[in-house]
Amino acid sequence: MKICVIGIGLIGGSIALTLKKKGLVSYVKGVEANQQHAERALALGLADEILPLEDAIHETDIIILSVPVSAAENMLPKILDHITTQVVMDVGSTKYGLVKTVKDHPNRKRFVATHPMWGTEYSGPDAATLNSFSGKAVVVTDREDSDAEALLKIENLYKTLGMHIVYMNSEAHDLHAAYVSHISHITSFALANTVLEKEREEDTIFQLASAGFESTVRLAKSNPDMWVPIFMQNRENVLDVLNEHITQLRKFKSCLEKENYEYLRELIEKANKIGKVLIEKQNTGLKNKV
Amino acid sequence: MKICVIGIGLIGGSIALTLKKKGLVSYVKGVEANQQHAERALALGLADEILPLEDAIHETDIIILSVPVSAAENMLPKILDHITTQVVMDVGSTKYGLVKTVKDHPNRKRFVATHPMWGTEYSGPDAATLNSFSGKAVVVTDREDSDAEALLKIENLYKTLGMHIVYMNSEAHDLHAAYVSHISHITSFALANTVLEKEREEDTIFQLASAGFESTVRLAKSNPDMWVPIFMQNRENVLDVLNEHITQLRKFKSCLEKENYEYLRELIEKANKIGKVLIEKQNTGLKNKV
Repeated sequence: MKICVIGIGLIGGSIALTLKKKGLVSYVKGVEANQQHAERALALGLADEILPLEDAIHETDIIILSVPVSAAENMLPKILDHITTQVVMDVGSTKYGLVKTVKDHPNRKRFVATHPMWGTEYSGPDAATLNSFSGKAVVVTDREDSDAEALLKIENLYKTLGMHIVYMNSEAHDLHAAYVSHISHITSFALANTVLEKEREEDTIFQLASAGFESTVRLAKSNPDMWVPIFMQNRENVLDVLNEHITQLRKFKSCLEKENYEYLRELIEKANKIGKVLIEKQNTGLKNKV
Repeated sequence: MKICVIGIGLIGGSIALTLKKKGLVSYVKGVEANQQHAERALALGLADEILPLEDAIHETDIIILSVPVSAAENMLPKILDHITTQVVMDVGSTKYGLVKTVKDHPNRKRFVATHPMWGTEYSGPDAATLNSFSGKAVVVTDREDSDAEALLKIENLYKTLGMHIVYMNSEAHDLHAAYVSHISHITSFALANTVLEKEREEDTIFQLASAGFESTVRLAKSNPDMWVPIFMQNRENVLDVLNEHITQLRKFKSCLEKENYEYLRELIEKANKIGKVLIEKQNTGLKNKV
């Protein structure tokens, strides 16, 4: 099978690498606007050649759109204009806007909207890794709007990556993604800024910063090119959850101000329940990423 | 050398286990109020025997106080009342209150105030591990208030654990700890509560929760018995940093409300700088924990 990967970085590159290794894909045509990334992708074997968009999508079975969500919205209608028998899938972190954009496109049924729940705080071809997706979940949204045969091809691709498929509509996806992924990035960015604002003596951070701190600020290294468009697209859901999060932080603040340590303990005990949720997830073999 | 470990859980147990393995310590007398923990500590070889406090401190060289910071404040003066040639050290996450409590104690100079910057979200003897401290930093505060010989013994203990020693006064420690450790716990507790509040359908969390989410809520599993006293003791510093953190989150909120995506990008780019700080720390061999 030949595939075309548009945007051959962390996600597109990791998919291409793994599918070739697994033998599902024999040839990868890459599309990459960033010249340095294009060279690295070839050097790392993520793509067999780098071509202009219109050349790359011809004579391929599956087209994988793995660019920031705002770029995906611009490119998807044009790609659907040019395809014949190909199936197109995206891998973006928001779904509702994209699906709406191509709602009435005559080739809508050749498109399958997906979000593999894996990623890291790094980006670009050098961040791509083999077998990263195995054991994690992928969300396929609005499956009734895709051809059965197109859907099957994409499901088979994700099963080859070792992923577990979860179905929902694009609105539900965006709501849940705000809670289990997007807010984590905002808290992490804000925590980094909090510490950078106050801890001017950076040497002290170097020496004392602990694994707990590193764990909570890890996502603060994430690329704005990817995240600004996600926050734009999922603005309302993210605002809802951000308001709730500020409310929850104010409860901790109020406990400290009023020295109400009994309620502080209750808040912590409630938070401890997240451990049970995450342990159950591990036990059901659904340890996912992003 | 014989040591007495008061509170033989995650930290006390890990220290005892590692020092025995390294050959610095031949015998560990444990003090443990929790009967189940006492049994587990013996079964796991963290202690050679469990004794009442007064019996345990006799005929030992070093007494390690590894109980929640509020309990440490209660116990330290009584321990100092009973010692002769022993050195006492604590391992608590706040220092100013404890040091103040024993400021005028006749045996103050036999006490060394320390905070090894390692820990996990787990607690109790079963969480204890070998060699956890290696390569991380330990803060020793107010070293001028300890006997030179007592200080040397404790420094040697931490060097045997493979730790890098950082000196500062207890007030500076508590301020920095609020920024590089305590606030991370509050944001993590509050994030867990945010998601638990809104995501009533727990199955959806199970399936979609990503490594990013897990990373930011990991600390939310931390024990309130340990953390309520830390927040009590470091209340003012934690309130300062929490206020700053809410201010930083409000900037993200304002960007989304006003659709000011240029400033949103600036905030994220600023946050990205934390990556540089953490990478430099790794390169200087100071990858620490807690």
